[in-house]
Amino acid sequence: MISIRTDLAVEAKEIYKEKNNGEMPGVDVEEYNKEDIKITNVKIVSDIGAKMMGKPKGTYITIDIPEFVHYDGDAMDRVSVVMGEVLSPLIKLDDSMTALVVGLGNWNVTPDAVGPKVVSKIMVTRHLKQLVPDSIDEGIRPVCAISPGVLGITGMETGEIIRGIVERIKPNLVICIDALASRKMNRVNRTIQIGTSGISPGAGIGNRRMEISEKTLGVPVIAIGIPTVVDAATLANDTIDLVLDEMIKSANEGKEFYNMLKSIDKAEKQKMIAEILNPYVGNLVVTPKEIDMVINSVSKIIANGINIALQPALDLEDINKYLN
Amino acid sequence: MISIRTDLAVEAKEIYKEKNNGEMPGVDVEEYNKEDIKITNVKIVSDIGAKMMGKPKGTYITIDIPEFVHYDGDAMDRVSVVMGEVLSPLIKLDDSMTALVVGLGNWNVTPDAVGPKVVSKIMVTRHLKQLVPDSIDEGIRPVCAISPGVLGITGMETGEIIRGIVERIKPNLVICIDALASRKMNRVNRTIQIGTSGISPGAGIGNRRMEISEKTLGVPVIAIGIPTVVDAATLANDTIDLVLDEMIKSANEGKEFYNMLKSIDKAEKQKMIAEILNPYVGNLVVTPKEIDMVINSVSKIIANGINIALQPALDLEDINKYLN
Amino acid sequence: MISIRTDLAVEAKEIYKEKNNGEMPGVDVEEYNKEDIKITNVKIVSDIGAKMMGKPKGTYITIDIPEFVHYDGDAMDRVSVVMGEVLSPLIKLDDSMTALVVGLGNWNVTPDAVGPKVVSKIMVTRHLKQLVPDSIDEGIRPVCAISPGVLGITGMETGEIIRGIVERIKPNLVICIDALASRKMNRVNRTIQIGTSGISPGAGIGNRRMEISEKTLGVPVIAIGIPTVVDAATLANDTIDLVLDEMIKSANEGKEFYNMLKSIDKAEKQKMIAEILNPYVGNLVVTPKEIDMVINSVSKIIANGINIALQPALDLEDINKYLN
Amino acid sequence: MISIRTDLAVEAKEIYKEKNNGEMPGVDVEEYNKEDIKITNVKIVSDIGAKMMGKPKGTYITIDIPEFVHYDGDAMDRVSVVMGEVLSPLIKLDDSMTALVVGLGNWNVTPDAVGPKVVSKIMVTRHLKQLVPDSIDEGIRPVCAISPGVLGITGMETGEIIRGIVERIKPNLVICIDALASRKMNRVNRTIQIGTSGISPGAGIGNRRMEISEKTLGVPVIAIGIPTVVDAATLANDTIDLVLDEMIKSANEGKEFYNMLKSIDKAEKQKMIAEILNPYVGNLVVTPKEIDMVINSVSKIIANGINIALQPALDLEDINKYLN
Repeated sequence: MISIRTDLAVEAKEIYKEKNNGEMPGVDVEEYNKEDIKITNVKIVSDIGAKMMGKPKGTYITIDIPEFVHYDGDAMDRVSVVMGEVLSPLIKLDDSMTALVVGLGNWNVTPDAVGPKVVSKIMVTRHLKQLVPDSIDEGIRPVCAISPGVLGITGMETGEIIRGIVERIKPNLVICIDALASRKMNRVNRTIQIGTSGISPGAGIGNRRMEISEKTLGVPVIAIGIPTVVDAATLANDTIDLVLDEMIKSANEGKEFYNMLKSIDKAEKQKMIAEILNPYVGNLVVTPKEIDMVINSVSKIIANGINIALQPALDLEDINKYLN
Repeated sequence: MISIRTDLAVEAKEIYKEKNNGEMPGVDVEEYNKEDIKITNVKIVSDIGAKMMGKPKGTYITIDIPEFVHYDGDAMDRVSVVMGEVLSPLIKLDDSMTALVVGLGNWNVTPDAVGPKVVSKIMVTRHLKQLVPDSIDEGIRPVCAISPGVLGITGMETGEIIRGIVERIKPNLVICIDALASRKMNRVNRTIQIGTSGISPGAGIGNRRMEISEKTLGVPVIAIGIPTVVDAATLANDTIDLVLDEMIKSANEGKEFYNMLKSIDKAEKQKMIAEILNPYVGNLVVTPKEIDMVINSVSKIIANGINIALQPALDLEDINKYLN
Repeated sequence: MISIRTDLAVEAKEIYKEKNNGEMPGVDVEEYNKEDIKITNVKIVSDIGAKMMGKPKGTYITIDIPEFVHYDGDAMDRVSVVMGEVLSPLIKLDDSMTALVVGLGNWNVTPDAVGPKVVSKIMVTRHLKQLVPDSIDEGIRPVCAISPGVLGITGMETGEIIRGIVERIKPNLVICIDALASRKMNRVNRTIQIGTSGISPGAGIGNRRMEISEKTLGVPVIAIGIPTVVDAATLANDTIDLVLDEMIKSANEGKEFYNMLKSIDKAEKQKMIAEILNPYVGNLVVTPKEIDMVINSVSKIIANGINIALQPALDLEDINKYLN
Repeated sequence: MISIRTDLAVEAKEIYKEKNNGEMPGVDVEEYNKEDIKITNVKIVSDIGAKMMGKPKGTYITIDIPEFVHYDGDAMDRVSVVMGEVLSPLIKLDDSMTALVVGLGNWNVTPDAVGPKVVSKIMVTRHLKQLVPDSIDEGIRPVCAISPGVLGITGMETGEIIRGIVERIKPNLVICIDALASRKMNRVNRTIQIGTSGISPGAGIGNRRMEISEKTLGVPVIAIGIPTVVDAATLANDTIDLVLDEMIKSANEGKEFYNMLKSIDKAEKQKMIAEILNPYVGNLVVTPKEIDMVINSVSKIIANGINIALQPALDLEDINKYLN
């Protein structure tokens, strides 16, 4: 039994289904729509489910952003509101409890910069509650935020930095935002995943090396991820499979032969792909050309989704006014 | 006879050679090395050569940057010096004649920003020669520079903007820098092309729409290009061809069958690839993940190559001191 | 008779009034309010008025932005709407006529970057009208825009670049945006001036050197300016005058003596101030510490004021949606 | 006895000397030159010295950067080398001990961004020593670095963040870099102060609120500061004093009267200045216009000074090569 390597639970489930023609045991899936926004709720409830999904037990909610949202401010706000509604029940805090929002990733690498960009748009209030409590509404939750950078920039494990800060600041909840890799181009910058199990080693574009979770930090961790790239080797591999599928479909004869090729040559095929993509392999990513603009847009959507969920006393208009 | 669609003359030549097992008529090729830097000099000398290459007659010089140069300041300087030596003979100006350096491309789109970034590192002197002639050495050539933006930013054809400026400023030479698309990943950010025939419509990442050449501007135009992306569909297509090649090589039987597949299904194959890459097709690009850093590095290399060629009275140390 | 050196007509008028205890001949002034936004309409109608104001004949409208607007998105929108109403009557164009918006100033110098920042937020439509006329509403005016840079960046007179572009593109109106210097700190980033006489040599933070006006370009020119700095020497000088005023007021005896000091030592006083501010004099500016944020805010206000005035068929919501 | 409020020890000493016509007790001062670079070594050795200087006991070394250095790469390197020589003896570490470099200040406010900019140019090696020890020379010291942001951005006391990180990472030395305010314009961006007593509450442009020192962190703290602004009220006040001085000097009669004014009206005078600078008071700063460029230059000088001091096995050429 091979575990499936993808950051998105919804993708792991799809891949399993394709291969096994059936639902995965130990995994509950619920889908529904809010207008044109599709929400998928994947619950990994057993150890076998966790093993097959390659992810810890827990809840993984996926929000699919409709096409063209990034070109329409109103539509972006609509997605933020839905995200806020989905995220709210996971935040089990009293109003006076503190949340720490952490933007993972490298601000110098555009597709990895989504975490730091979200943090720059978070409504930060903790210091106001402490310093000028009268100037701020009773109902405002104390929120603090940081983008700790990546190992190559700081020389320190990001998980260690966060742990040190959590131990001193003692927030009641940590929300981490990270850029992910997807296996499918049509998920790039279009799917937001919200999970309750923290971030595993090896996840994310930058391959975080330390687990960031309730186990390591001592407080609940909500992980919010968005795929911003597809690995180039993945794209090539998937394209080839599709081509073979098409050959099988249209072949009058020799179908068995193709099927055989498709299945037995998998390792060989991936090796060849890796070779052709050498010497850049591992560093090559596929992105939309206007990646800088799209990253700004998804960051705004996610930041406002978090702002709405963390500040139930405010509406989006208040938040936008506060953030200008 | 199908003309070959690539921005790089050296690639067009290779593709022809692969397909026809021979050199292209009307095209002279010379290769040599300066230490570990390979220079290829492609001269299109006849109309038939121009037609088959899909490019105007003229000289196209390619400089291949060794691997890892982007991580080593000294090595970057070495490439700049070689580029300066290659570019110098093409600049047929007296010291007192003015050059206008034009950075094409969109500064908001990282892989298309190489032109504007080069311009920001050009030694601009024309105003000093006019305003404070005593403060500046006799031997300094008057140089001016601009990044006019792209159609989507200005609402104006870039070629029209340049033409308007050239008509008023009356430079004796125009040097344009543009980001290109390559067909091969190992050329991305590693190959600098210098051409004497200007820029054709449809070239570059942003598909410039108007010819920029001696014909349209009335002064000689040197076009400097560097591929900064590979089109994602190209990458997928090339990978598949390699996979089929490998299958043919290793097959004990059925080689003819594969060969047939490889050849007859070309249109079908490309159609499928386009489908799988939908809905982003045309906008998807493959880049190294650290594209922001690499674009800075190639911009510095190219800018200093131009600075060296335009200012024969100065050495690289003087130039770096001036530019700080 | 000494002409008054300030970029703002409203300031020139005030200074005259203070010194002469009366209104300036040849200058009509009208003031009114739209809610908490004060509008002052200064018309220089005669040559003597022009000479005393140090500005060409024409209309100079000043919009005073209320305090704290830069911290409130709604309030920013309100100022944009008022600016659009004030600017509209000055744009005497049919819907099909083209406007060119020009952002003057140096994008590398924060207080001088307001022009380029405004241009980046202008609704650019001219290419859409030409290329995909069906995709865009009938009522949309063709607008194009450029930030040509400054002499030190391009080596070319900005006025020459604009003239070259205007000659090829042939717009029916040019709108220039420029950062100004004010004499009073409370005008910095708080006063928008709209003038119909173009831009004179020596105006602006960067001291533009060529006139940009209907006379030099052949089409009407609207100049929009906003003071973003106070010259440090001006600030020191004004402060000293206030201190002397205060001394005179509170003195029981010797008032004549102070008055004498205040008047006769003017040249001496300014010389001393220049000395103390040496060696930086001329380059020292006074700004609010959060200048980067404030420049973003005023740029958005001005850009939307222009967008509203140029696109009468759209409201601010449409424009924001278009610009995202 | 009034303690003197300035971030620079050398300024506190000068102010004392001016007022008291003598050297301060409990403070040792040594001055010397390395070529055209002046170094001043201020040692506060007694409690009375500390009280009068308004600073903790310790060593405060000032490096005066010659004029025009910011326009000359070679000269910048020379200052870095001198700074490295001055800083080295204060770093009492074995080669294998870890240093943490902390960039204080707000990256969104240009004159406060010098700390984060220095950190971005620090040679970070700690992770390489841990992960790929064979790839890196024996003699390389493990260095890590972070820019924690400011209270308004993170909602957390910067001192708390640093303390949390220090407790987990356990460096043997902390080096903090911060932007300061000066009382004299000719020190702005021209004086680097290196101190061994950490950072006191209220220092810096952003008025850090928590002490950062060996006492709070448990490891030695070296504080490196550079004034990047002059407070506008300070500038006005100093200018007025100079004007009064000049009046006294040139007065034929009434000198006593001026002297009285100068001394007794001090509080009144400062109140008036505060009033005139209202409503911006406290936020107004005086900077050179080209502040963005100058901040980049000083950041590079300081970063390389630190790199040289932390990596005695490397020379500046190696470091520049590493940093590209």
